[in-house]
Amino acid sequence: MAERPGGRTARVRADVLRAAEDALIEKGFAGLDLADVARRAVVGKTTVYRRWKTVPALVADLLADMAEQSLPRTDTGSLADDLRANARLVQRTLTDPRQGPLFRAFLAAALTDSETAAALNRFYAVRVAEWAPCVADAITRGDLPADTAPDEVIRAVSAPLYYRLLTGDPPTLETADTAAAAAIAAARAGAYAVAPKIPQR
Amino acid sequence: MAERPGGRTARVRADVLRAAEDALIEKGFAGLDLADVARRAVVGKTTVYRRWKTVPALVADLLADMAEQSLPRTDTGSLADDLRANARLVQRTLTDPRQGPLFRAFLAAALTDSETAAALNRFYAVRVAEWAPCVADAITRGDLPADTAPDEVIRAVSAPLYYRLLTGDPPTLETADTAAAAAIAAARAGAYAVAPKIPQR
Repeated sequence: MAERPGGRTARVRADVLRAAEDALIEKGFAGLDLADVARRAVVGKTTVYRRWKTVPALVADLLADMAEQSLPRTDTGSLADDLRANARLVQRTLTDPRQGPLFRAFLAAALTDSETAAALNRFYAVRVAEWAPCVADAITRGDLPADTAPDEVIRAVSAPLYYRLLTGDPPTLETADTAAAAAIAAARAGAYAVAPKIPQR
Repeated sequence: MAERPGGRTARVRADVLRAAEDALIEKGFAGLDLADVARRAVVGKTTVYRRWKTVPALVADLLADMAEQSLPRTDTGSLADDLRANARLVQRTLTDPRQGPLFRAFLAAALTDSETAAALNRFYAVRVAEWAPCVADAITRGDLPADTAPDEVIRAVSAPLYYRLLTGDPPTLETADTAAAAAIAAARAGAYAVAPKIPQR
């Protein structure tokens, strides 16, 4: 039977992923259970087991869906404004009443489960690739050294916000703005330069 | 009955904390169980329950003990060398065959348990207070702006290393050296300045 995009299969996936989010927020990764997710989603248990097979595979699909749905970057033409917008988006996500506990569950799972770590890594790779062009544009404009690694600058913006979350101190708007300003200052000083290639003889 | 320091009570604590480490590495926070820890430590179950009461309290005591035992800072007289030594120490800890899994277990627990988050926060406060004087000394020498917040610089060195761990990519020696260099560049540019006090009318 042919399935149209947005048809029954897509609806089942959306319902199951939403239920997986709810269960993750409520019970964490260790408490996640495919039968419970099926019940919450009002979807047949067999469908969930056949399609997702394991809890880590379901969480990986949830992260893949979040990467697909995630917002496009800001493009103001100013590196400081772009990176501040990026930092504030990360800060809002990590302190959001729903997204915050969800990301804490992802991070806790990734620290102990390698399949989830790989899925989370892919999620961040998508987000970094979305935002890296604002650094590349700044390099083109001459605002940053030519050998700056754009990915490293984007990761440097996120790092202090996640570190604050880890040390039990939710990141504030000030943390976000400081993270953006620090990343730019370090990038200007050449701290994120791509390692120079060894010349071939 | 009087107890000498280093006597039976101290030995019991050392044995129980070592057993708690083993159990955390093997089973994670969710799998930690006071009876299992007592069995591993070859200590009476009643002693463990009476003295530590709960799993989060035992983990908090383990972190308190680690803070007490932790190494003094490096003092080379050069900010760049001190912060690189700090970054490399954090990198070695997070990738150590025993300390790495132990810290991943602490972090995963702290993300979902507020008592462990508070205990981990106290552990990092001790480590930050140990290393902050190398930044304060650099300020005194005129190497950094006078209004730099020493604690923020130390936290900025650790953040990228922990972020790498979270995103499933263990921090390397290069990550450590980049983190130290980036923190210094950002500090020199004034990114970690203490917020100016609003003048009183």
